[in-house]
Amino acid sequence: MRTIEWKDDGVYIIDQTKLPHELSIIKCTDYERIAKAIENMEIRGAPAIGVAAAMGIALAAKASSNKSIEELRKDLEKAALRLIKTRPTAKNLFWAIERLRKIWINEKEGIVEKIIKEAISIAEEDIASCKKISEYGAQLIEDGDGILTYCNAGGLACVELGTALGIIKTAFKLGKKIKVFVPETRPLLQGARLTAFELKLEGIPFKLITDNMVGYIMQKRMVNKVIVGADRITRYGDVFNKIGTYLLALAAKAHNIPFYVAAPISTIDFETLSENVIIEERNPNEILYIKGIPIAPENIEVINPAFDMTPANLVSAIITDKGIFKPPYDFTLFREFYK
Amino acid sequence: MRTIEWKDDGVYIIDQTKLPHELSIIKCTDYERIAKAIENMEIRGAPAIGVAAAMGIALAAKASSNKSIEELRKDLEKAALRLIKTRPTAKNLFWAIERLRKIWINEKEGIVEKIIKEAISIAEEDIASCKKISEYGAQLIEDGDGILTYCNAGGLACVELGTALGIIKTAFKLGKKIKVFVPETRPLLQGARLTAFELKLEGIPFKLITDNMVGYIMQKRMVNKVIVGADRITRYGDVFNKIGTYLLALAAKAHNIPFYVAAPISTIDFETLSENVIIEERNPNEILYIKGIPIAPENIEVINPAFDMTPANLVSAIITDKGIFKPPYDFTLFREFYK
Repeated sequence: MRTIEWKDDGVYIIDQTKLPHELSIIKCTDYERIAKAIENMEIRGAPAIGVAAAMGIALAAKASSNKSIEELRKDLEKAALRLIKTRPTAKNLFWAIERLRKIWINEKEGIVEKIIKEAISIAEEDIASCKKISEYGAQLIEDGDGILTYCNAGGLACVELGTALGIIKTAFKLGKKIKVFVPETRPLLQGARLTAFELKLEGIPFKLITDNMVGYIMQKRMVNKVIVGADRITRYGDVFNKIGTYLLALAAKAHNIPFYVAAPISTIDFETLSENVIIEERNPNEILYIKGIPIAPENIEVINPAFDMTPANLVSAIITDKGIFKPPYDFTLFREFYK
Repeated sequence: MRTIEWKDDGVYIIDQTKLPHELSIIKCTDYERIAKAIENMEIRGAPAIGVAAAMGIALAAKASSNKSIEELRKDLEKAALRLIKTRPTAKNLFWAIERLRKIWINEKEGIVEKIIKEAISIAEEDIASCKKISEYGAQLIEDGDGILTYCNAGGLACVELGTALGIIKTAFKLGKKIKVFVPETRPLLQGARLTAFELKLEGIPFKLITDNMVGYIMQKRMVNKVIVGADRITRYGDVFNKIGTYLLALAAKAHNIPFYVAAPISTIDFETLSENVIIEERNPNEILYIKGIPIAPENIEVINPAFDMTPANLVSAIITDKGIFKPPYDFTLFREFYK
């Protein structure tokens, strides 16, 4: 089962807001529906929203296939602009759109077909890169490991398999005896809803915890490795990931526990300085209500940043589809190869 | 308004499980109802459950007032045994019961009246000690401070005013310009429900956050002081408090932010070694359901420790009703004075 799939009559995505209690599929037939799905987090996870944006562009191309090349380019720019505005932090979204933009800017003919083909390629490459990441990362896992992951960096955050969770699944399939700890990941509970769902499906032993138990389980030596995904990694190795990741990294450092980040190269931002990365601020109601039920007094102030930055000096290794990188990180050198 | 109050016809407590949406009062006329209220967390907070246990004993004494002294003592031991079994971690519960036990063991007459008087004294002393703590602690607060507190160490955790939150309220009343950050405190959301309720009532500016945002707000320099309460402090200054406190202390250390603990001397355990303190493990459903709604797949494993330990080396000062203590901590010396 894929998180997102291109078919002749539309883009099919799993509605992640309904999991784990309902497995519901959304059919998107225009880019606006894809944009909404990204905004509402019906689809989420950096690699998955990169693929979704690409398929959104492909839907826009298809809808304008009978138009002149100028009109087609105009429509595609409009779709790109809309999709870019959905969420500001995950690099893969911008990376995927830029990759398709090269086609509609440079190509003279067959643009629609080429864009659709490229969008499908991006999805296929994501599957391949998750597989690579998982194989590289699984080498770091040993029998008896207690592994802390966070949020959902699983198949649901990608097309299938996943990054951090892909490593865990692969290690488990290799027969390594592991236990996984899953913080629920407030406010939207991607850990409790999505990671727990995937681990249960695979039969991998795990325990759900609240986000504030991370220090406790480290102190009690239940955990000896941390593996998380990333929404954006800047060139010197600072990691932007789900809010709370930074706390995990601080706690791991204090306990001498390796802190690994798993992500495809498409997550790396070769340009932006860390201080210029925009951290998305989401709707306060995500915190004030859980499934529509108020959990706090009315009319109070809330902050709701969706991500935080873990500085490179807290990151033990970055596991990518091109191998495992160790500090000091400098991805500038790789820029020309992966552009 | 007091969290708990002794009246001629029973003990009145605010039902904290219903806050902030409903202010409901429970009337307890026997110790069993008090024990249930402590277990269900209708009343919670270390000082408040100390007072509740004392009043539970007083209700038991009252119910046995026509019995022989032997039967009375037997009944009181039975009540004590029941109340002691409610929750294992907060020191104040055991401290309050031991204090009353001295009466029924040593006194020959007027035991019932003496116990009732002593239970009321414990409540009055708690009010006085919160006031002292608040005055001492308020001296540490400066204009412009961003203060992180945690869980609820407010009036609702005591008889009134509070410890950590008492300091914040007192500083605010002294005209200090402060902002408070309140992590929601999963699983039972005492921050979102109770601390937010108290701060809103007082008109103190605050922002609600999820527990995993603590690193982010420190990194963004929104916070320059942390003040929390305590359920038990061992003699060399290790602090047992709501699960997640330890993570706050680690993050504060990493950012060079002072980490203060506020508690009455009755919270200090002069005997037990930290490694022998029992950390209560509560019902998994507290995590799996929020207000009755499931947030995770069914039939999964959960751990639910209610407290964690913050080692003394992360604690900048302990603010008590007997003054502010700085490290290295050794409360053994004070044992004879406060026994």
